[in-house]
Amino acid sequence: MTATDYKFEGWLGLDASSADGKMVWGEFEPKPWEETDVDIKVTHCGICGSDLHTLRSGWGPTLYPCCVGHEIVGTVVRVGSEVKNGLKLGDRVGVGAQSDSCMNRINGDCEACSSGNENYCQNKHVGTYNGVYLNGGKSYGGYATYNRSPSNFVVKIPDGISSAEAAPMLCGGVTTYAPLKHHGAGPGKTVGIIGLGGLGHFGVMWAKALGADKVVVISRSGVKKEDAFKMGADQFIATAEEEDWTSKYKSTIDLLLCTVSDTRMPVAGYLSLLKMDGTFIQVGLPDDGFPTFQQKPLIFKRVKITGSLIGSPNDIREMFALAEEKGVRPWISVIGMKDANKAILDFEDGKPRYRFVLENQENGAARL
Amino acid sequence: MTATDYKFEGWLGLDASSADGKMVWGEFEPKPWEETDVDIKVTHCGICGSDLHTLRSGWGPTLYPCCVGHEIVGTVVRVGSEVKNGLKLGDRVGVGAQSDSCMNRINGDCEACSSGNENYCQNKHVGTYNGVYLNGGKSYGGYATYNRSPSNFVVKIPDGISSAEAAPMLCGGVTTYAPLKHHGAGPGKTVGIIGLGGLGHFGVMWAKALGADKVVVISRSGVKKEDAFKMGADQFIATAEEEDWTSKYKSTIDLLLCTVSDTRMPVAGYLSLLKMDGTFIQVGLPDDGFPTFQQKPLIFKRVKITGSLIGSPNDIREMFALAEEKGVRPWISVIGMKDANKAILDFEDGKPRYRFVLENQENGAARL
Repeated sequence: MTATDYKFEGWLGLDASSADGKMVWGEFEPKPWEETDVDIKVTHCGICGSDLHTLRSGWGPTLYPCCVGHEIVGTVVRVGSEVKNGLKLGDRVGVGAQSDSCMNRINGDCEACSSGNENYCQNKHVGTYNGVYLNGGKSYGGYATYNRSPSNFVVKIPDGISSAEAAPMLCGGVTTYAPLKHHGAGPGKTVGIIGLGGLGHFGVMWAKALGADKVVVISRSGVKKEDAFKMGADQFIATAEEEDWTSKYKSTIDLLLCTVSDTRMPVAGYLSLLKMDGTFIQVGLPDDGFPTFQQKPLIFKRVKITGSLIGSPNDIREMFALAEEKGVRPWISVIGMKDANKAILDFEDGKPRYRFVLENQENGAARL
Repeated sequence: MTATDYKFEGWLGLDASSADGKMVWGEFEPKPWEETDVDIKVTHCGICGSDLHTLRSGWGPTLYPCCVGHEIVGTVVRVGSEVKNGLKLGDRVGVGAQSDSCMNRINGDCEACSSGNENYCQNKHVGTYNGVYLNGGKSYGGYATYNRSPSNFVVKIPDGISSAEAAPMLCGGVTTYAPLKHHGAGPGKTVGIIGLGGLGHFGVMWAKALGADKVVVISRSGVKKEDAFKMGADQFIATAEEEDWTSKYKSTIDLLLCTVSDTRMPVAGYLSLLKMDGTFIQVGLPDDGFPTFQQKPLIFKRVKITGSLIGSPNDIREMFALAEEKGVRPWISVIGMKDANKAILDFEDGKPRYRFVLENQENGAARL
């Protein structure tokens, strides 16, 4: 490892109990340095549901010790000699949920990596934490003082967006922006957002920013109705409060973005909301598969069911540009990095309205 | 009812036992005549799986007496004064599985009917048999001497295609042609056809005719392998005979057309064959819904699952034009209309290689 004058320290999960607010502060060893890497002095890191899943080994065994956090914002403090995307010392940058892919280094030309769809690389997908790089190093996330990431996955943040606001866009933001953009949310379209949490609240704002004619929020209860309208929604469906919702709103929506990941969700009801040729996009990942459903709507209305996985570095750049142009800003609460254990417990309790961001004041966060 | 000098007679199912080869020959009353209708002297009618489903009330209670058959070919013997698509007495024509839709007569402008997608009309979809027209008349199919259908759903057959060969194209043909065309089967694409029966054999030939780079047949056993290659397939996967098929052929197919309707089919395995952004199109309709599946491929490869329902009259016209241009002809056995009861039993036994066509010799079939 190359010597640096800073230490990589962060909140470490040592076992599954860490998800219960028992992460411990400590030093970790970042991936062995490569000349395509950059080091980042972390000022902010958003809290994402994946952080909790991983801390508790919910998606398979976690490589403890693990430092989570993949909505990382900070300043560049070291730049490798082979970094090609123009990053410079002092740049304000972000890293999302993915920090490496095969980049054509495994089986030769990779369709996904060569077409700017690194997030769909089937050869190598390194998560920003709990992953293993090609050089054998482990990836550590952003509940930390410093982060080291391959430069292809490090994106400059436009001046018009604050660091705290940029953070949750790096995963929650792009996870909803990328599929809405890809499937043509925009003028002439009615877009439905299922679930109004961290992901859903971004979904509503992106659909409006992309110019959708109408944005409909579909939620179990009506408690977030007022918030939904403030975010730009035009209509609100509370499925637990309107018995006839599947018939009343039948065939009215072009594009449904489902941010809920509950195997018991009423998929058939959601599909009934779609028009002919409509698309249902799943972004939540239930642990135990997709619910069984009657396939009639697939056949009788030619609707499509698909999914989407985060976004590519280019998607992140596009998203930031749209956010800057249209003034899209997440609803966030900023919390001191020292209070990360309490923050993840509050997160699990569903308290964010709508996203939590950890802040390293000692790293200069206050100045940004 | 307007007087005619011919009688509507056919094979009638009187109850669910009719599916056991117990249809009885008898007269039926066609829909009350409207000036947008045509009467057709039936020369040929293909046998389709739906015929059996309906005879045995497999998709809900059937309106007995029922005369099935929705791959009808014959000559026009009567033309209504308001028929607008140029049909004339003596024209050789066909009727597929649908014989009416709302045609903007119910809720005003219908998106499906106005865009040439009558098969997806959500207001009214009248099957060619076991349906009820807006004027209250019942629809009767083509195991019969004569058929009466609204002219919008009656299509001229090009001179280059024989009546016997045209018949199975009207349902089995267009059910596979329409989705392959809609989803871009053609140059640059690898197309997989799951199941090599009446539908599947059309699928292989359409994919080749549309110019797909490669056509792969996916079947349980290898018994139809030779046939598949004769139809134009480039590759054959026998899932029950190649244990590692899901990994061996992983991410190699752009478009999968699934003609199998068995809830136990290995959907997850099929999805593993798809490339990033690939599409799985279901055309079989299992009675009890779609199998549960892990949605990972939807998310990690952005694949789509969709369905397709028969085709519109325009799809049928396009399909006939392609068949004439490229010489696509179904593999059929022609059976006398009098032997319909035996034919449906043989059909149920899986004997068609690959489609049965009933022929009314007394109606001039032999001349065509």
